[in-house]
Amino acid sequence: MDVISVIRTKRDRGVLSDDQIDWVIDAYTRGEVADEQMSALAMAILLNGMTRAEIARWTAAMINSGERMNFSALTRPTADKHSTGGVGDKITLPLAPLVAACGAAVPQLSGRGLGHTGGTLDKLESIPGWRALLSNAEMLDVLDTTGAVICAAGDGLAPADKKLYALRDVTGTVEAIPLIASSIMSKKIAEGTGSLVLDVKVGSGAFMKNIDDARELASTMVGLGTDHGVKTVALLTDMATPLGLTAGNALEVRESVEVLAGGGPADVVELTLALAREMLDAAGIKDADPAKALADGSAMDVWRRMIAAQGGDPDATLPTAREQHVITAPASGTLTRLDAYDVGVAAWRLGAGRARKEDPVQAGAGVELHAKPGERVTEGQPLLTLHTDTPERFEYAIKSLQGAYDIDTQGANGFTPNPIVLDRIA
Amino acid sequence: MDVISVIRTKRDRGVLSDDQIDWVIDAYTRGEVADEQMSALAMAILLNGMTRAEIARWTAAMINSGERMNFSALTRPTADKHSTGGVGDKITLPLAPLVAACGAAVPQLSGRGLGHTGGTLDKLESIPGWRALLSNAEMLDVLDTTGAVICAAGDGLAPADKKLYALRDVTGTVEAIPLIASSIMSKKIAEGTGSLVLDVKVGSGAFMKNIDDARELASTMVGLGTDHGVKTVALLTDMATPLGLTAGNALEVRESVEVLAGGGPADVVELTLALAREMLDAAGIKDADPAKALADGSAMDVWRRMIAAQGGDPDATLPTAREQHVITAPASGTLTRLDAYDVGVAAWRLGAGRARKEDPVQAGAGVELHAKPGERVTEGQPLLTLHTDTPERFEYAIKSLQGAYDIDTQGANGFTPNPIVLDRIA
Repeated sequence: MDVISVIRTKRDRGVLSDDQIDWVIDAYTRGEVADEQMSALAMAILLNGMTRAEIARWTAAMINSGERMNFSALTRPTADKHSTGGVGDKITLPLAPLVAACGAAVPQLSGRGLGHTGGTLDKLESIPGWRALLSNAEMLDVLDTTGAVICAAGDGLAPADKKLYALRDVTGTVEAIPLIASSIMSKKIAEGTGSLVLDVKVGSGAFMKNIDDARELASTMVGLGTDHGVKTVALLTDMATPLGLTAGNALEVRESVEVLAGGGPADVVELTLALAREMLDAAGIKDADPAKALADGSAMDVWRRMIAAQGGDPDATLPTAREQHVITAPASGTLTRLDAYDVGVAAWRLGAGRARKEDPVQAGAGVELHAKPGERVTEGQPLLTLHTDTPERFEYAIKSLQGAYDIDTQGANGFTPNPIVLDRIA
Repeated sequence: MDVISVIRTKRDRGVLSDDQIDWVIDAYTRGEVADEQMSALAMAILLNGMTRAEIARWTAAMINSGERMNFSALTRPTADKHSTGGVGDKITLPLAPLVAACGAAVPQLSGRGLGHTGGTLDKLESIPGWRALLSNAEMLDVLDTTGAVICAAGDGLAPADKKLYALRDVTGTVEAIPLIASSIMSKKIAEGTGSLVLDVKVGSGAFMKNIDDARELASTMVGLGTDHGVKTVALLTDMATPLGLTAGNALEVRESVEVLAGGGPADVVELTLALAREMLDAAGIKDADPAKALADGSAMDVWRRMIAAQGGDPDATLPTAREQHVITAPASGTLTRLDAYDVGVAAWRLGAGRARKEDPVQAGAGVELHAKPGERVTEGQPLLTLHTDTPERFEYAIKSLQGAYDIDTQGANGFTPNPIVLDRIA
């Protein structure tokens, strides 16, 4: 087997054999296939596609590149959720304790942010003392005692994917549906969950800009999960505008705690409940009422125990940024658009995200929204508040928000914002 | 400027801007753009193509990555030839001294073989004492005193191309017409020749397997040369069967000397004369007769001076391989096919070529042909003789020759072999 013949097969629009796929994933993991060879193959896959059978084999080969976890010792059914990533997407924070409060075990192996989308671990690290890195034994212990755990994935799960993901990030080959689907699903299947709900984002702030691509990605992933015995459902959800009223690490933790306290922005609550219901259904838990678990404080109880179990102080004051800058509405009217991507880029530039993997993030940095599409605004009222510890970043962030919003001064007759949940694929 | 946006532009079927091309070639040469990024871009170029304007700018950027030579001090007009590579293609050896004997200065910066095609430098290095590596001053001196020089290209010419060529070789991105054309032409233009004749090979033993691809490559290169003030002409020539009766280093030198002595196989003589006439015409030399220069020994005189000027002994006995194996004709009839690629692979496997750049080659190894397509053969007569110093390679070479030839026992009515010159593009 040689790598050039594998590359040529895909380059010339052929179908990779099982042997070719198994070999190239294994050889790449071992370092026998070089980065420059794998990136050429990734570009050929991006441009020429893969059949469902190729994607399935590719996913299996990535799973087989590492260890698999086993949750069979748990007494509760496991339910997992994965989001393809968006701006202001803090849903994991209220969702994991909520679903645990309703009776499932919720292992959330999460990542850090890169580019304009934030990372769940970065957000939680704004809580003083909280640790993302747990051993497998610690992770199982937190999961068993509190019902939920949110932590970094161990290095042993799908190491081929880790290496390939980092490569795709620097070679313009992220946006390949076969590679996105196999990357997500290899980790989730290796993680050993019994059921999985996928939140596939669509819109300017998401990888998938249009609903057809999102639908293809979702149905590919649902197929992969089902083939591996994981009950998998996908919701396609709107990412044209940020979720909730905050994008940034501590800002989003604060908003998540509001949701767990029975308040919070309507869209965050709606999506949290929709995903919770899907997760409980997929896990086979019939008689739970997630809306009640938010209202009666039982989800909040799990949150506090889960944060404390990972060294965090749930009562600590969250960090705030040293400097603020307010952008006001230039006219009175109806806000008809507030672009998720532009807000995400602004938050990133303010210090909430990182340009390179090794960069630190600012806990307090980010963007606060004072209105959402569909709401009326008055000229001169605050529209957005920018937060950062490094005020020299304001100019660059403000620039990315020019053209980020539209205000209709004519009354915006007939304007309705997108629903949160656009479609469901099972 | 960042490399991911450049990769994305081509990935998404866009046209690269002049600035993007200049930047990416420069940054790759300096090591700021990594191999894995350039290989993803090369695959995107291979699959999505380039406009003529993009190819022209890419070529100019590669020329600008290094130094340019200057032959303006020479009193004779310069004439250069480039072949896209084939099996048994020793034409440079008789051609350079022949064209010099007719009044042109012939600088032939040549390469080594990789894969199934041999390299001109490897062939000449089978002459005891001959040196491929000359300084610029030595090169100009040999050219000035003998009229011709065949040597390795200095590291200073188009360093971007050197780096990119080595990368394409290991990433399945060799077969991209924009990249082949710009690679060849950047070196030739940087070399500073006044005129250039391209020998674009077509057939199983060539990179271009069909005449339409070859025609596109040829017209792209002729356009690039003309744009840079180099009078450029291309011949499309047949590479369905090996050129002449030998493929291998010393074997081909011996055949070349036969041609310079007024003998040699008809196809080698025909192509040498056709290319010589094109080179003399492009160089503006009207009254020369290359056939006479072969017959009267004046081309041989230049050959002997040129070899001696580079340390070689033109009278030395050439190395021969230690072991021979003869393949005989399995039937009587007309030989209607003898496949160039299969013979090239056999010669390579016998030790005439290299699998990796750092491998040595055997001077005596190769394949000798005892018949050419169109000729009658008798059952049991020698058809091919294999030469090697390492007889354990015979089995592997013999395997690559199974199915390499067809003998028509019915008389092959109406069979005519391909002409050597298939088309001319100017």
